Amino acid sequence: MKIIVDGMGGDNAPQAVVQGAVEAAKLIEHEIVLVGDEQKLQEELAANGYQVNDPKQGKISVVHASEVILNEDSPVKAVRTKKDSSMVRGIRMVKEGEGDLFISAGNTGALMAGSLFNLGRIPGIDRPAIACIYPIMTQEPALLVDAGANAECKPNNLLEFGIMGSIYMERVLGRKNPRVGLVNNGTEEGKGTTLTKAAHEMLEKSSQINFVGNVEAREVPHGVCDIIVCDGFVGNAILKLTEGFALAVLKLLKQKFTEGTRAKAGALLLKNKMYELKGEFDYSEYGGAPFLGVRGSVIKMHGSSNANAVKNTILKGIPYAENRVVETIESAVLEIEEIVNSED
Amino acid sequence: MKIIVDGMGGDNAPQAVVQGAVEAAKLIEHEIVLVGDEQKLQEELAANGYQVNDPKQGKISVVHASEVILNEDSPVKAVRTKKDSSMVRGIRMVKEGEGDLFISAGNTGALMAGSLFNLGRIPGIDRPAIACIYPIMTQEPALLVDAGANAECKPNNLLEFGIMGSIYMERVLGRKNPRVGLVNNGTEEGKGTTLTKAAHEMLEKSSQINFVGNVEAREVPHGVCDIIVCDGFVGNAILKLTEGFALAVLKLLKQKFTEGTRAKAGALLLKNKMYELKGEFDYSEYGGAPFLGVRGSVIKMHGSSNANAVKNTILKGIPYAENRVVETIESAVLEIEEIVNSED
Repeated sequence: MKIIVDGMGGDNAPQAVVQGAVEAAKLIEHEIVLVGDEQKLQEELAANGYQVNDPKQGKISVVHASEVILNEDSPVKAVRTKKDSSMVRGIRMVKEGEGDLFISAGNTGALMAGSLFNLGRIPGIDRPAIACIYPIMTQEPALLVDAGANAECKPNNLLEFGIMGSIYMERVLGRKNPRVGLVNNGTEEGKGTTLTKAAHEMLEKSSQINFVGNVEAREVPHGVCDIIVCDGFVGNAILKLTEGFALAVLKLLKQKFTEGTRAKAGALLLKNKMYELKGEFDYSEYGGAPFLGVRGSVIKMHGSSNANAVKNTILKGIPYAENRVVETIESAVLEIEEIVNSED
Repeated sequence: MKIIVDGMGGDNAPQAVVQGAVEAAKLIEHEIVLVGDEQKLQEELAANGYQVNDPKQGKISVVHASEVILNEDSPVKAVRTKKDSSMVRGIRMVKEGEGDLFISAGNTGALMAGSLFNLGRIPGIDRPAIACIYPIMTQEPALLVDAGANAECKPNNLLEFGIMGSIYMERVLGRKNPRVGLVNNGTEEGKGTTLTKAAHEMLEKSSQINFVGNVEAREVPHGVCDIIVCDGFVGNAILKLTEGFALAVLKLLKQKFTEGTRAKAGALLLKNKMYELKGEFDYSEYGGAPFLGVRGSVIKMHGSSNANAVKNTILKGIPYAENRVVETIESAVLEIEEIVNSED
């Protein structure tokens, strides 16, 4: 298998990307292909002590691309005009069968637009979604679908998110029969908006998922379900609010625990525990966010990914291509059509 | 001024309600009227040592109501059939001019339905909203509008929420020129859904508010704005997720800080700081949630309000009636009509 990595995408590229790739390559049999400015990438490989033909270091190669899509670029325009960007080149390699998986920390909108232009949607999937790991303290993480690709959704989109998320969690995260929950403003059936009421009916009809019904946002951080289904506007709010609140709590703890000698002494004794606490909020351990519904395996990393996040995204992304998630979704769409048609 | 309090609403009624009223009465000149089962309320007053005609204890009277609206009651049906409930009686007293403010910890849906049936909307306000205090750690709290009354909104509703929230914060919470932010999935103008884009345009046109533009959910816990404007579905998610996450963090801290002798010793030294931390999340200090846009002053308390929450809701609710918030909103609607008409 060949894993294509955008060498130039993200705030810390190419350094962190190359370092993460070098670390990952040591642990896997598959080949990693870095796409981007060849000279810079080779320099970074050398700086990380990578040597071709050293079996202990695994297989890394470089494919040159002369352009870079920036975060401030307009997504659609960028993928149309920067044809020789590391991102477009990488996506095209998956399209042409020269790679099995593409990973990028670059411009999210451009990565989605480029994936849709070049790889297209899985037939029968109306709206591909970004599936994002949602950390649950002291438990296995959940998967949030959609994390922001589709701010406005129809009920069948939420059905698609539930089914695709379920397949991803089984095949990639290895959790059997994951619980699918629909974010709503009350748990009772019949609660909600026009959208969530109709989506609830459709999700209930699916025989492919373990639908546990409506879930309230209050229960989400306690692990009430494995797949958190919502439209991309709400998903974005849930994800960002959690990040923002976690940061605010850590800041407040730091402030409180350094006020006065007594507090400082206490904090010193709790140092390890505080590290563990910070670890609960650490996204870099969890891997990236797949674009479910795209006809090809594409994974988005956080824009500020460090080397550890890059390494983990590569390692945890392998089953996405290896366990044929795209093909499995392809074979699951028939039921979606049946359910949607039965509603008309 | 007369403050009408639903003696029977909420999980801890009538005990906590009466105790909170007794504590509040000592601190204010205004009369508190408890509505509900007269015998039970008098018993609770006695149990709390309340004596009529003791000037130090303030003025409390009881008005009998034979029925109680329960949490599990269907809101609309309950307010239609339970005419002699403490809730409907209380709302009617405001309607008839026998009270200036009604406070209840009972069924939220019934309180909104009963308020709309009996008091009606302020002319020109399309959708009344629940405005909820949103705690910001180490800073003054923000106000979230709408916290859940209107799961589906039109752009003009969000404009109304911004204007009404702004008036409430100035007149009741005493914050001058409060910053109004629109929750969106990006801060740039032009970002968002059909709803948020149109609402952004309208909010920008208002000369009555200090509109600071789009705000991302990530920035909300850091105090990016004073009035958090969003539809009731998103508002419910923000509020509930924050509550749920705060609880999960406190639970995790407790767990981590009791693992092993070293951690326990550290936690002992940090005991006061931990209390302070818990206090940051304590809703009972902040007072209740006004129903903005209703033609009368109605405040909802949290269903699980304790005596302290009841006391604070009474004390902090007084300016809602005293500073003529309803009348100020009435005089602000002309601009809303102009802005909405200019969009057509």
